[in-house]
Amino acid sequence: MKSKKKHQILNVFYILIVYFTPFNQVISQTKKNTMANNYKPVIAIHGGAGTILKQHMTAEKEKAYQEKLNEALMAGYTILEKGGSALDAVEAAIKIMEDSPLFNAGKGSVFTNAETIEMDASVMDGSNLKAGAIAGVKTIKNPIIAARAVMEKSEHVFLIGDGAEQFAAKQGIEIVSPDYFKDENRLQQLRKIKEQEKTILDHDGEKGEINSEIEFNTEIDKDKKYGTVGAVALDKYGNLAAATSTGGMTNKRYGRVGDAPIIGAGTYANNATCAVSCTGHGEYFIRNVVAYDVSALMEYKGLSLQKAAEWIVNDKLEKQDARGGLIAIDRKGNISMPFNTPGMYRACMDANGNKTIKIYKD
Amino acid sequence: MKSKKKHQILNVFYILIVYFTPFNQVISQTKKNTMANNYKPVIAIHGGAGTILKQHMTAEKEKAYQEKLNEALMAGYTILEKGGSALDAVEAAIKIMEDSPLFNAGKGSVFTNAETIEMDASVMDGSNLKAGAIAGVKTIKNPIIAARAVMEKSEHVFLIGDGAEQFAAKQGIEIVSPDYFKDENRLQQLRKIKEQEKTILDHDGEKGEINSEIEFNTEIDKDKKYGTVGAVALDKYGNLAAATSTGGMTNKRYGRVGDAPIIGAGTYANNATCAVSCTGHGEYFIRNVVAYDVSALMEYKGLSLQKAAEWIVNDKLEKQDARGGLIAIDRKGNISMPFNTPGMYRACMDANGNKTIKIYKD
Repeated sequence: MKSKKKHQILNVFYILIVYFTPFNQVISQTKKNTMANNYKPVIAIHGGAGTILKQHMTAEKEKAYQEKLNEALMAGYTILEKGGSALDAVEAAIKIMEDSPLFNAGKGSVFTNAETIEMDASVMDGSNLKAGAIAGVKTIKNPIIAARAVMEKSEHVFLIGDGAEQFAAKQGIEIVSPDYFKDENRLQQLRKIKEQEKTILDHDGEKGEINSEIEFNTEIDKDKKYGTVGAVALDKYGNLAAATSTGGMTNKRYGRVGDAPIIGAGTYANNATCAVSCTGHGEYFIRNVVAYDVSALMEYKGLSLQKAAEWIVNDKLEKQDARGGLIAIDRKGNISMPFNTPGMYRACMDANGNKTIKIYKD
Repeated sequence: MKSKKKHQILNVFYILIVYFTPFNQVISQTKKNTMANNYKPVIAIHGGAGTILKQHMTAEKEKAYQEKLNEALMAGYTILEKGGSALDAVEAAIKIMEDSPLFNAGKGSVFTNAETIEMDASVMDGSNLKAGAIAGVKTIKNPIIAARAVMEKSEHVFLIGDGAEQFAAKQGIEIVSPDYFKDENRLQQLRKIKEQEKTILDHDGEKGEINSEIEFNTEIDKDKKYGTVGAVALDKYGNLAAATSTGGMTNKRYGRVGDAPIIGAGTYANNATCAVSCTGHGEYFIRNVVAYDVSALMEYKGLSLQKAAEWIVNDKLEKQDARGGLIAIDRKGNISMPFNTPGMYRACMDANGNKTIKIYKD
């Protein structure tokens, strides 16, 4: 009954918010801000969520992750501080994580069952709701650059497979040999997993030093790692952007694609509400349309960014045993980074210039 | 000012609805109904929206469309009446449209720029939020059957390209030679379009008898046709399901994928709210997360199915010059079939057993 009371009080707040928000107001605010220059830049990034436990880390590994997160974060933040766009900031941050072997995206992508690499990425511009995404690409060095080219240089949103690669090549985007992605440790990791005939969702990032006892204990769902990188940003003009990139699941088969390239599921941005990038068990994130759901709860239910993001991750997804997390920024510069796994590689610079870099739960 | 007043009155209604709807109530209703048997079956289908004008139709063509729509509708409805599931009903209805050369899906799929066929499909079960989707497949006779197999026989939601075909073959789903889809008229249609070097969104269904003056006049956006088939159903147990299938855009390149296989964009179903299948300019439907948006407006804003669906199609999408339509059913059996194009092939059987089969605007 106490909970019901609390619920009713909360509802009164929602009602007041809803009442004072004309139905179409937020929609009409979905436009590019180029004049106003009074927003303080904000950026948040993630490098995947999962069973990331302190007892399985070394001080060196921890330092390597923290340094790379810091590098990616500051690359994006510097762009924002100099008056660059949110889009440029998220692309720059993700490119650094894609180029690092630490994260499951770009260079660090995990292997499919066929011992190939198949990467997915997406980006969305909150100022005009334009979006670009690619899936199942094998030779594009930085999938995030290709996703942005789809958004800006084609009339399409989503290109897959060979076609996406042809498009990227035509745009002059760097194509590399599949060997560029080949990593002996990742390959050993795959073969170990294949032996155990289990498809696992793997962020890992530990490049083959995977602890199979952790990955394959009885509570397998709780011990999966989710490898994705993502970034969300608010620029000085009040424009929001979101982007996500991944190598997908270790040992994946049949051209499996997760939520990372799905607009609304893994990535969403709208100047009227928020920018969101997800990481987690992709199938659940698709079915729950997670990234857009944060926006919808804000726009239609009047929830704050934090309330919306936390309810989705810690209540809605939790009830489905759906593991993962997300990073989100709203148009006021608020940041939320909830996750329901033991850890999530994450970092942010808030509107006051305060930096946070974290790996584990607080 | 009058509009503002009306808006405020509407808001009061929303507030009352929101107030009397505990935040998590609808979520908790998202479960399979197997006991109750007091729902009246409802089904709605579409065969694509676009510039479908009476003056460009012959009586024979009109009759052919009406008969095929009727056949698909009644196949689904018969299943529902006999106590079959909403999932079986939408699959059966779509299979009939996929097997017909009249619609841009399955057998009637349009050609890509490379003179190949690339099909996409998806399905969602509102009773458990499970979903299945495939994209870029070339040899699966009925993509909707493969999408359902992904949902029911894999741990994944979304498979693309060769991998999706391998999975389908392994499941014993009928694989055909690409020649099965080859249609001389469709091929001529493609070549005519290629000559004009324009990528058009084509529902057509007229199998090459495309009127190029209509397709390529100065207001090209307004004259595109959107080829997709879809179905939504409510079964006797109160379970909702939605499914969509398409051959995509005539002359498409680079592995372009539209909204049809994207859960949340082209297809969405949730027993707590509604089942939705879209047809239209896919890029806009992805960016607006249209199918889930209907559900979110109902769940979070307290709108009726009709209000939600009509506002999205005739206001939100209209303002973006985004053309198309959708079909939707809610858990009470209400039906909504809005579109902002001159026509949409559509049919439904309501809870009272009234049949509607229409092509043009009323």
